[in-house]
Amino acid sequence: MKQLNTEILSVGTELLLGHITNTDARDLSEMLSRIGINVKYHTVVGDNPERLRDCVRIAKQRADILITTGGLGPTCDDLTKQVLAEAFGLRLVQNQEELQGLYDYIHNSARYTPNNLTQAMLPEGCTVFHNKWGTAPGCAFHAEGKTVLMFPGPPVECVPMFREYGIPYLCALSDEEIVSHSVRIFGIGESAVDDIFADEMKAMTNPTMAPYAKECDCLLQITAKAKSEEEAEAMISPVTEYVKARLGEWVYGMDVECLEEAVLPLLLERQLTFAAAESCTGGEIAKRFTDLPGASTVFVGGAVVCTDGAKARILGLDPDMIKEKGAVSAEVAKVLAENVRTLTGADIGIGVTGLAGPDGDGVHEIGTVFVAMAVDNRTYVRALHMGAKRTRSFIRRMSGNHAFDMMRRWLSGLEVEIVI
Amino acid sequence: MKQLNTEILSVGTELLLGHITNTDARDLSEMLSRIGINVKYHTVVGDNPERLRDCVRIAKQRADILITTGGLGPTCDDLTKQVLAEAFGLRLVQNQEELQGLYDYIHNSARYTPNNLTQAMLPEGCTVFHNKWGTAPGCAFHAEGKTVLMFPGPPVECVPMFREYGIPYLCALSDEEIVSHSVRIFGIGESAVDDIFADEMKAMTNPTMAPYAKECDCLLQITAKAKSEEEAEAMISPVTEYVKARLGEWVYGMDVECLEEAVLPLLLERQLTFAAAESCTGGEIAKRFTDLPGASTVFVGGAVVCTDGAKARILGLDPDMIKEKGAVSAEVAKVLAENVRTLTGADIGIGVTGLAGPDGDGVHEIGTVFVAMAVDNRTYVRALHMGAKRTRSFIRRMSGNHAFDMMRRWLSGLEVEIVI
Repeated sequence: MKQLNTEILSVGTELLLGHITNTDARDLSEMLSRIGINVKYHTVVGDNPERLRDCVRIAKQRADILITTGGLGPTCDDLTKQVLAEAFGLRLVQNQEELQGLYDYIHNSARYTPNNLTQAMLPEGCTVFHNKWGTAPGCAFHAEGKTVLMFPGPPVECVPMFREYGIPYLCALSDEEIVSHSVRIFGIGESAVDDIFADEMKAMTNPTMAPYAKECDCLLQITAKAKSEEEAEAMISPVTEYVKARLGEWVYGMDVECLEEAVLPLLLERQLTFAAAESCTGGEIAKRFTDLPGASTVFVGGAVVCTDGAKARILGLDPDMIKEKGAVSAEVAKVLAENVRTLTGADIGIGVTGLAGPDGDGVHEIGTVFVAMAVDNRTYVRALHMGAKRTRSFIRRMSGNHAFDMMRRWLSGLEVEIVI
Repeated sequence: MKQLNTEILSVGTELLLGHITNTDARDLSEMLSRIGINVKYHTVVGDNPERLRDCVRIAKQRADILITTGGLGPTCDDLTKQVLAEAFGLRLVQNQEELQGLYDYIHNSARYTPNNLTQAMLPEGCTVFHNKWGTAPGCAFHAEGKTVLMFPGPPVECVPMFREYGIPYLCALSDEEIVSHSVRIFGIGESAVDDIFADEMKAMTNPTMAPYAKECDCLLQITAKAKSEEEAEAMISPVTEYVKARLGEWVYGMDVECLEEAVLPLLLERQLTFAAAESCTGGEIAKRFTDLPGASTVFVGGAVVCTDGAKARILGLDPDMIKEKGAVSAEVAKVLAENVRTLTGADIGIGVTGLAGPDGDGVHEIGTVFVAMAVDNRTYVRALHMGAKRTRSFIRRMSGNHAFDMMRRWLSGLEVEIVI
């Protein structure tokens, strides 16, 4: 297949005002990269027909596939559909099936506005993407050698619709299979990974390999194109094996999104549970882990203990010990981990205490965090010094990553105490 | 001042692969909208000189101010600086001060690469933005009637640099003051707000008023332009008063980002503390509240109790009661709130239990959540039925919003039990 350049055009003044983040562009891009479609541009434009028309004109020149998000539905007068249909010389015609669906919706809803019915107007000859998650349908058509797909803006509608309709629609365009896998890495940075594989990456054309930085970890993406999926997988396989052999225990998973996603199956497999006692992370570990569907079968729960009083009352820490050692100390992290484990009866206890800023304690530098893990009859503690330049959000996220990394290592039989 | 159209051009293949989200564009847009600079376009392009050159050409045609993020620094060969300087016919010259800073950095760092020194090359005659949060400096220049500002891509560098250097640099361009305030609303949706103020919004030109949807709440943005800040504030003031009078207790704050940000000062002012016992939200409330700097003075902490066992062991719930009433019940929410309050000694206890999905309990629909608040000698419970179409993330976030809304209402002397 010829390389199909793709542009994602997001329509919405809210995006330009910074009221919302363009997560649609990210999520669609990620799904597209997995099926080997290269996104070359993201564009955001407001709810303005003239400027949208101009952006569509530019996209037609530089992209083969144009995917729009947003600007469908009654509040924006179905701007995107109107402008896109016009740009490709198509009329909007009433879709009877969608119209009936809208009648039913209106009948059952207090939030009806007469504009709702215009949502049943769609470009002639298009493939309709029925919206099970909201009201505005999406659609797709081929015209003037281009492929156009339109989706509503709210991420809770856009993302599942793109997965259910967009991906199969686009896969059907290609006679070549593209497979991509990501090797997720924690403990060394993207530039170090870049250095290690510099020569290989320069020499490789198919598969290709490229490192990318995330906020608190990084990844190597390996992509192959072939006649069949099996063939592409067979081309990738030795490369991932080589990478895993070179990077060893820094690799925490394949095709996962975060460390907690690597920890969940390890716990499930070994039928072990964990609990967390969090001071400076304030629920970061609990929240992130329970963001994963099914997490509550292995995460029994835990305690958020911001104050010394809460540490004493919920987890039974000795106030004199806290005073003597300091709330930010390896000792307190250790007892937090041990006590939350005992209290909940979990197999693994995690304890975190430290300074996420902006306020300090006059003793430690902001970014100092102790992460402890109590297992069997041993408690491991990592002392982190992230530096005062880090944001509160980074310090909390990175502390969570270390907690999950310690669990991952212990569950995989690796050394837990590493030098950071 | 003539309206200065602005484009934010973000450079980075990671963005196009969906590995990272373009939060820079959102954060910069939000700061720009506060000083009355209209962002008309966001563009994202990869680390590719040819396509970047093309995007710069388009931006020069349609924008007066061009702000770039990313593509600075050694790993991308300082792509953005090179292409932008070339596009405006400027040479890159070595900046002695930045060079010295880089020498010092390299001297103290194990992660030195020879490319680091190219970061001291900057467009001739530019204003240098020294990077206290990383290594790659930003810069700004005027050329060909346009204003160009460049910032590094990592949000922890980009956002503080833009606040410290970008905003003052852009404010100095204008002889007119623009002031904008947002009225934050919870309990009625954006389209309802739109309906209420439809006539006023059509009639208004300065100040202007516009509603925007967020994931689990909405806002009205009111913006005025005048010769002085005082004058603009005086124009906005009667409008915000009118809006607050019309919307009443649905208004939860002015110029805040989320409900918890409205709750924190109310707690501080009344010197009250709270604690939360979370089942289905799994730390959402604790994590969100402690995302706010200074939150730990009023949030003593709480418990994440995903399993029935944890509810019993940490918070002393009677297993027979849980069995009889069901883990997802108003009764369990009530006891969670009351027991976490007693355990921690907090003034307010929050309890949440429900089904965030994707797994159900065979009894309740997914999206059924009970949120309880124990205060003085009364416990309030809200029963939420968000519908099974909602995502896990939405259900958890919305449940948290209700907990914070109940606290806000009680702390403000309003009726807590509202019909949702």
